[in-house]
Amino acid sequence: MRINGRQYQTIWLSEDGWSVEIIDQTRLPHIFATVRLSSLEDAARAIRTMQVRGAPLIGVTAAYGLCLALRSDASDEALNQAIDHLTSQRPTAVNLRWALEEMQLAVRNLSRGSRVEAAYARAARMARDDVEANRAIGEHGLVLLRTLLARKPAGTPLNVLTHCNAGWLAAVDWGTATSPIYRAHDLGLPIHVWVGETRPRNQGAALTTFELGAHGVPHTVIADNAGGHLMQRGEVDVAIVGADRVAANGDAANKIGTYLKALAARDTGVPFYVALPYSTIDWSLENGDQIPIEERSCDEVLHMTGRTAAGDIATVQIAPDGSPAANPAFDITPSRLITGLITERGVAAASASGLLSLYPERRATGPA
Amino acid sequence: MRINGRQYQTIWLSEDGWSVEIIDQTRLPHIFATVRLSSLEDAARAIRTMQVRGAPLIGVTAAYGLCLALRSDASDEALNQAIDHLTSQRPTAVNLRWALEEMQLAVRNLSRGSRVEAAYARAARMARDDVEANRAIGEHGLVLLRTLLARKPAGTPLNVLTHCNAGWLAAVDWGTATSPIYRAHDLGLPIHVWVGETRPRNQGAALTTFELGAHGVPHTVIADNAGGHLMQRGEVDVAIVGADRVAANGDAANKIGTYLKALAARDTGVPFYVALPYSTIDWSLENGDQIPIEERSCDEVLHMTGRTAAGDIATVQIAPDGSPAANPAFDITPSRLITGLITERGVAAASASGLLSLYPERRATGPA
Repeated sequence: MRINGRQYQTIWLSEDGWSVEIIDQTRLPHIFATVRLSSLEDAARAIRTMQVRGAPLIGVTAAYGLCLALRSDASDEALNQAIDHLTSQRPTAVNLRWALEEMQLAVRNLSRGSRVEAAYARAARMARDDVEANRAIGEHGLVLLRTLLARKPAGTPLNVLTHCNAGWLAAVDWGTATSPIYRAHDLGLPIHVWVGETRPRNQGAALTTFELGAHGVPHTVIADNAGGHLMQRGEVDVAIVGADRVAANGDAANKIGTYLKALAARDTGVPFYVALPYSTIDWSLENGDQIPIEERSCDEVLHMTGRTAAGDIATVQIAPDGSPAANPAFDITPSRLITGLITERGVAAASASGLLSLYPERRATGPA
Repeated sequence: MRINGRQYQTIWLSEDGWSVEIIDQTRLPHIFATVRLSSLEDAARAIRTMQVRGAPLIGVTAAYGLCLALRSDASDEALNQAIDHLTSQRPTAVNLRWALEEMQLAVRNLSRGSRVEAAYARAARMARDDVEANRAIGEHGLVLLRTLLARKPAGTPLNVLTHCNAGWLAAVDWGTATSPIYRAHDLGLPIHVWVGETRPRNQGAALTTFELGAHGVPHTVIADNAGGHLMQRGEVDVAIVGADRVAANGDAANKIGTYLKALAARDTGVPFYVALPYSTIDWSLENGDQIPIEERSCDEVLHMTGRTAAGDIATVQIAPDGSPAANPAFDITPSRLITGLITERGVAAASASGLLSLYPERRATGPA
């Protein structure tokens, strides 16, 4: 997508042909800076500190992290250590584990000498596949948005509520939840996005706003608390969010607070969709209860970072000294609250049979 | 309640016997400062800028504001102008209108010369009545907390979730939602409070933490987004919130985001109570749809104020330049989601008949 008129993806090979560059998402929206990753530890740190975040992008970054690891040591032992190290950086997004399993499959039966080239090829294909999957999510989601828009008075915009950032910054390009929005906007359909700020890390207020603004999509920031009220007042036509892991029954782990928006959507009759590529489905889990929920530092709750009037980046403490905090980073939205799952293969009911209808090849290996 | 060992209420007459002092709640938790109000405009500004906030305290501050107005001009015209001016400062909390109607009743049939003394007497009684009502709310709520605690394994604390600040800082003393919590804590019952930070103005993270901490009540700050997840995981035994206005059918207007917590409580089987004094009931409204919702400045969403590591108070911008925001300050929780209303007269179902069972004198004048 475009930033200041220039086309970007969130991760790309440097001109040297082996190191990897990313956009440092911890500095957005006030500072646009790229970072070069040239070692396994660089990639692990980028994932851990959330310079890259979003389930699909975490997966692709981990894949390139493995390339960098193999470049310095292509032994079986180094391969396994690198996979363990990268896997341990974030527990909830299953794309991380999925990507590393794919990478392992691609290199494990090769000689040491062939592993590096094969790894880079597999990582590049993963990045391309992510772009293509997200583009296809946009096409399928577009059909839904067109249908909803057709029910509104001519000329009134379709109001889409989203939570966190499931935008192109969370993937390689297009995004998941935002992909239908970009498609609709690019086709000239009137779309307006309610952006929940997404405390504690403000991915909505900092990132979704940034990318929608850079692309020219009309949007309005709201406190996370306001989503239900807007639905009660008829100001939300549809909610679309991303996911960090979806169980085989359609239960979805996504950024903390998603469950509350899904409850409000159900209570007010607003359709609630989860957009995700195949790599976010964890076929090994029967339901969402088994998805591990990452507990992050309480500093994220007790502090807020932004830009002062003088233009400096500053962090302020919002609670009194000594007040403890808890910071679960994700919650589980039960499939019963989800109107449908939008994947690269189409839209399905959030259920085991719905998912299997899109991925029939999983019938043999999926849970009973 | 106590701050640094000294007993405070939120509003009191100065030693001069006519001006009024308040705690400046916009500077908490990092700076404890009091402000002296000596004119109608001082009181109006304190309400508008939220130096005082919370439905009961807004009412009492408006009452003293009218005393100050009458002190400089006790004519009918000045009385009516002052009432209009004060009423217009905040639209949602009905206590403001209620308090000014009570003040008008107390002085309108008196000669100009007697009005000031009568006004101060009525305002002082209103403050005393507020303390007494909130103390009684604590007694009735305590019975509920004891019952819930009796179901838990011995020694495990009762986990209470609250939203915004319905503490003693929102009233003259004790608070509404916090009153049962303080009573239970003072009796040695094990109580732990989940404090939702309450974006955009952080009354939870800044004020509820401050007063619970000063009184020694164990608590943990969470992002507003986390309340539903904690309920799903069984970590919330009961939710208690305050209200800015309750309609005759039990629908409750409270800080934006309350509706989302009520939905999660219903979905997970957690009891959800609203605590309020009689002055918060608007008998003239059949249901909550008619309650006006204040829209506040979008700056509150786009910025956050706190203390830097260097100890300065700073405000930071969290969204990119040019991103608009919307800021509805309250939402309506339908009575069907409320387990019960805790008032100074007892606990009732959130319904017209429930409210009338506590206030039978309203049967004649209440809505059909």
